[in-house]
Amino acid sequence: MEALRRRSGLPEGFRCSAVPLTFFPREKPSSKPYRMNLSLVLLDRATELFGGVFTRNAFPGHPVLIDRGRLANPVIRGILANNRIANVGIEGGGEDAESLLGNLGGLAGCRGEDFFVSSTGVIGWRLPVREMSLALEPLVKGLQRDSVLPVAEAIMTTDSFPKVRSIPVGQGRLVAVAKGAGMIEPNLATMLVFVLTDVSVERGVLRESLMWCAQRSFNCISVDGDQSTSDSLLAISSGVKPPVKDDEFREALSTVCGKLAEDIVRNGEGTGHVMRVTLRGSLDGEAARGAAKAVINSPLVKTAVYGNDPNVGRILNALGDYLGTAGLKVDPRSLSISLGGIGVFSHGAFDLDSEKELKLSGYLEECGLDPSRKGFPVHDRTVDIDIQVGEGEREITVTGSDLSYEYVRENAEYRS
Amino acid sequence: MEALRRRSGLPEGFRCSAVPLTFFPREKPSSKPYRMNLSLVLLDRATELFGGVFTRNAFPGHPVLIDRGRLANPVIRGILANNRIANVGIEGGGEDAESLLGNLGGLAGCRGEDFFVSSTGVIGWRLPVREMSLALEPLVKGLQRDSVLPVAEAIMTTDSFPKVRSIPVGQGRLVAVAKGAGMIEPNLATMLVFVLTDVSVERGVLRESLMWCAQRSFNCISVDGDQSTSDSLLAISSGVKPPVKDDEFREALSTVCGKLAEDIVRNGEGTGHVMRVTLRGSLDGEAARGAAKAVINSPLVKTAVYGNDPNVGRILNALGDYLGTAGLKVDPRSLSISLGGIGVFSHGAFDLDSEKELKLSGYLEECGLDPSRKGFPVHDRTVDIDIQVGEGEREITVTGSDLSYEYVRENAEYRS
Repeated sequence: MEALRRRSGLPEGFRCSAVPLTFFPREKPSSKPYRMNLSLVLLDRATELFGGVFTRNAFPGHPVLIDRGRLANPVIRGILANNRIANVGIEGGGEDAESLLGNLGGLAGCRGEDFFVSSTGVIGWRLPVREMSLALEPLVKGLQRDSVLPVAEAIMTTDSFPKVRSIPVGQGRLVAVAKGAGMIEPNLATMLVFVLTDVSVERGVLRESLMWCAQRSFNCISVDGDQSTSDSLLAISSGVKPPVKDDEFREALSTVCGKLAEDIVRNGEGTGHVMRVTLRGSLDGEAARGAAKAVINSPLVKTAVYGNDPNVGRILNALGDYLGTAGLKVDPRSLSISLGGIGVFSHGAFDLDSEKELKLSGYLEECGLDPSRKGFPVHDRTVDIDIQVGEGEREITVTGSDLSYEYVRENAEYRS
Repeated sequence: MEALRRRSGLPEGFRCSAVPLTFFPREKPSSKPYRMNLSLVLLDRATELFGGVFTRNAFPGHPVLIDRGRLANPVIRGILANNRIANVGIEGGGEDAESLLGNLGGLAGCRGEDFFVSSTGVIGWRLPVREMSLALEPLVKGLQRDSVLPVAEAIMTTDSFPKVRSIPVGQGRLVAVAKGAGMIEPNLATMLVFVLTDVSVERGVLRESLMWCAQRSFNCISVDGDQSTSDSLLAISSGVKPPVKDDEFREALSTVCGKLAEDIVRNGEGTGHVMRVTLRGSLDGEAARGAAKAVINSPLVKTAVYGNDPNVGRILNALGDYLGTAGLKVDPRSLSISLGGIGVFSHGAFDLDSEKELKLSGYLEECGLDPSRKGFPVHDRTVDIDIQVGEGEREITVTGSDLSYEYVRENAEYRS
């Protein structure tokens, strides 16, 4: 945890806090109280330097709808976030959120519309607005400017450790927190990421950089393939430190997003192996991403890797399924596949023998993590699957996880 | 098993048989012999009445490549099938299969090219041609005309019961056998279906009917979303009975295919619940199928159903993910969702309370099968998820299974 603490210092111009609360969901027959965390990021002064990237899900939650609207605001003052309930598909859910933000504005000396709002958790349950409102005063009173760690911890659901990454930029810093997604994060696969910096960066540059980095980081991790109703990536600059070159900012943002994305995959109780599929060759952007994701999302590939079984035929199967269904013609003779750097398919055929089988099994075992192990830090090994399709130098890497008993258990019992 | 025996009588003009054999795969460091079943369907006389529908996987196995070629043959005489090894991605795999068929032709008094060949099993292993050739003589000697059950049993891999369906047509019968696919069939998701009939049916009508029925039966079951390198649906008529009307034939074929498709989903050790998603409304064919499959393939929906947890938010999530990614605009106010006939979402919002939650949990429990139970017959309950998207009467139903511990266990340990 020491490493986490070191990287969690807030950039200048920000304060944050978090408080727990309890409530009884009206949708669940239960006499046991549910716990929720409310957290707040507050800038000392409103800023016009902010941006956001959101889920493409056709049924986005109320927070996403609200935050998309906020992108047109002249300024923003902070972020209010809660876990446990996603506020999706709720009659009056938008009003619920706005009323909370209004109350928050009253306490913070600004307007409700100055805040982003982020929610993650069960879809179909209503926010306990009364209990949350009562928690706003202690939330504002608890604001401190030392560490972002309370927010990183408060937005966790079944995450097994808080995810924080930071990097120095020019005279300032860039700090980002995330909660996990998908396979590792059974909580409806929601991913929330908040990026905070004190380095001044023009709004247009910030937004372009954010989109560019999301495409190469969070959009390249793949877990169970579900894109949630609530996925949100927000970025805010307090602007109190001098700007750096656009490239330098983008580079820093990219580094932090890349590391957080890997943290998200690596997070989980359910993850035995982290898989990394690198696809090179002639396929263009979307086809290459689709093909790589088809391999990393195949339940048959995932379960084989979980079982340390180098059943490499399943890689060919998943890839061929995607390409065939998409109507993309690939000559199998132009295809090569390796696992852990060991070639298993080339010139249109597999090249396997019992010695290689032993090597591959050993490789998978070495790359694995006991899924019953929890906590931070996790190991940094990956199962590398390299695929060349046709001629060409285009390259994409996607990261994902295996499919374990623990995943099924977590997801079968998530709400109980 | 009595029900199975009753429906397994061969139509006239066919004989069949099966024999087991053992071999040592050269690709696997093991001193234990592997078992394979070889099976044969042989017509008394070559027929020009046959057809086939095959996987769209971009890297089809050698048997699929060979069988596609056979569609241009003037006549066909039978089917040679094996389990355990799929003969996919093997240098010389085509020659291996043709040499086996040549030997078979010698024994049966015809040519190798008069046979379809079907293989299912591990991808990347080479057929044990010598051991298989030695088994051809007992295979031909064992031919009998009573029952198709030996073939249905021989093509099983991890199937927990043989799948046979039959129906009377005109003065004859239609009998079909299948081996399972996907989630229920960890053996690389391969589905093999052989349809045999003695009713004469014009080649063109047979092929059109086969495509039509496949689209409405096997293409509407969805298991883990993997489409294998070997999926094959073959149909042969001995033509010894008088023809029936085209519609009547198609209706009979459709009934048998529909039942077999459901058998495939219902087959497995790994299946706790059979799920049925019916989507009605304004979406057109491919979009409707994609949306329904997105729900039935969502690991989050599957695991919730497995756990008897009516986490209906995950249905909205999976549907919205598909629609959003596909760029299809749907007003959530035009959407309604019910589970087991109980409405949970309409007019843009969920409608849940603790009483309904209890009802829904009870419904899921009732629909479940203890996944540790095996054998035949299985129960016939389904978890019904009904979705209305927009106005309209178009309707599609897809059938799939939940995601259980047993699925992971089977697939993690499949080859060991």
